[in-house]
Amino acid sequence: MISIITVYLLEKQEYVRKQKQPDVRSQAVPLTRISIPACLPPHKGRALADAVHEGLVETCNVPSRDRFQLISTYAPDMMLIDPTFPDVRRTPEASIVEILFLEGRTIEQKTRLFRRIADRAMQAGFAGDDIMVTLTENKPTDWSAGNGRSYGDRPEAVETSRRSR
Amino acid sequence: MISIITVYLLEKQEYVRKQKQPDVRSQAVPLTRISIPACLPPHKGRALADAVHEGLVETCNVPSRDRFQLISTYAPDMMLIDPTFPDVRRTPEASIVEILFLEGRTIEQKTRLFRRIADRAMQAGFAGDDIMVTLTENKPTDWSAGNGRSYGDRPEAVETSRRSR
Amino acid sequence: MISIITVYLLEKQEYVRKQKQPDVRSQAVPLTRISIPACLPPHKGRALADAVHEGLVETCNVPSRDRFQLISTYAPDMMLIDPTFPDVRRTPEASIVEILFLEGRTIEQKTRLFRRIADRAMQAGFAGDDIMVTLTENKPTDWSAGNGRSYGDRPEAVETSRRSR
Repeated sequence: MISIITVYLLEKQEYVRKQKQPDVRSQAVPLTRISIPACLPPHKGRALADAVHEGLVETCNVPSRDRFQLISTYAPDMMLIDPTFPDVRRTPEASIVEILFLEGRTIEQKTRLFRRIADRAMQAGFAGDDIMVTLTENKPTDWSAGNGRSYGDRPEAVETSRRSR
Repeated sequence: MISIITVYLLEKQEYVRKQKQPDVRSQAVPLTRISIPACLPPHKGRALADAVHEGLVETCNVPSRDRFQLISTYAPDMMLIDPTFPDVRRTPEASIVEILFLEGRTIEQKTRLFRRIADRAMQAGFAGDDIMVTLTENKPTDWSAGNGRSYGDRPEAVETSRRSR
Repeated sequence: MISIITVYLLEKQEYVRKQKQPDVRSQAVPLTRISIPACLPPHKGRALADAVHEGLVETCNVPSRDRFQLISTYAPDMMLIDPTFPDVRRTPEASIVEILFLEGRTIEQKTRLFRRIADRAMQAGFAGDDIMVTLTENKPTDWSAGNGRSYGDRPEAVETSRRSR
């Protein structure tokens, strides 16, 4: 019975640890969708894509070559964005960034990621409130980067997957 | 040892509670993608977007100002939808609604959400079987609504996040 | 106290079982987004969509009628894909496949799915490295296939949902 309780405690400990420590093995393969209004000058769309990628590299240990981004433009009546919810002021240039990446990033990393993307976008001429970001997570075994191989088949990724069960 | 078991039981209890009770703090920030066929009259696309938003407000406690929707049209050969699976009858107006929102909605809320969206879409002239809906969830710390701040940094959201670990 | 430990052990066992055994009840309703470069000949876009659907049918027990796919084309400057990360060689035809489906597929099924999609795409003339795939999961109660009914209201799906808590 002691062993059962030990197992429980170890799992608990592992779980808490995972929330606190960045998992260096869960670095790669984000996929980003960037939705911009048709009125946005093209160079600003590209600047936002750069801002997102640099933010991921700087705060989430994403390798600089690991860039996968899809950019779509929307006519005003196809992109319905409240101008002030919850307590911001958006302009007609408001854009939405959706990032899908591996689980394992800490809350601290995510918070710094939001900050960094907004800062870099502002340097490119955006209003800070115009950048909305959402994150979704999956596992190494949920990616194939090419040639039919699972990203989870890499030794370090399998390890990550095992721990994240 | 009693304390260990107590911890386990409390967590269990909390987990069960979370499944049953709507979490009033996990209200905000849905992001919806609506995919409609090119043949759909524009006013029906907009009516579907309204139906989705009203459904979220009425069943999931989403604030009425909290509206973030992206609408895309597809040519017939770019939108492959089975006309009858699993046991419905779809018309060429069949549309797909994808909602990303905060975890914490109960199964009952989700069921009512589906019902409400379909009912309102039918009022706008849709066939009920033409509305397919999918839900995906993330956490308050996975959103930034603007200005580089994490939605999870709001006191009530941090609390939610802590509980949902 | 024995009963508490028994509950814990049973849950553990159930969890491990779920990771190993394909869940025949979690078969249906994948939604796939396929993002292709504008330069891709239309028949290859369709062939990729076929490859994805056949891969799902053959490896993940998806019914052959259960096909829901959205295909979008992107101009080169709207689809930023690294040509070699992590260790592949992509051509300008590199495409991205995003599948949302019910949780319950095993790692083995996912690995076979990646392999099968790439193999079939290669038969249609793609380079194997040009097919990137990502998977995201949700629950039966997160789908409505039409008419405002939750997919989780089907007896077998409710059962699945109960077990996956």
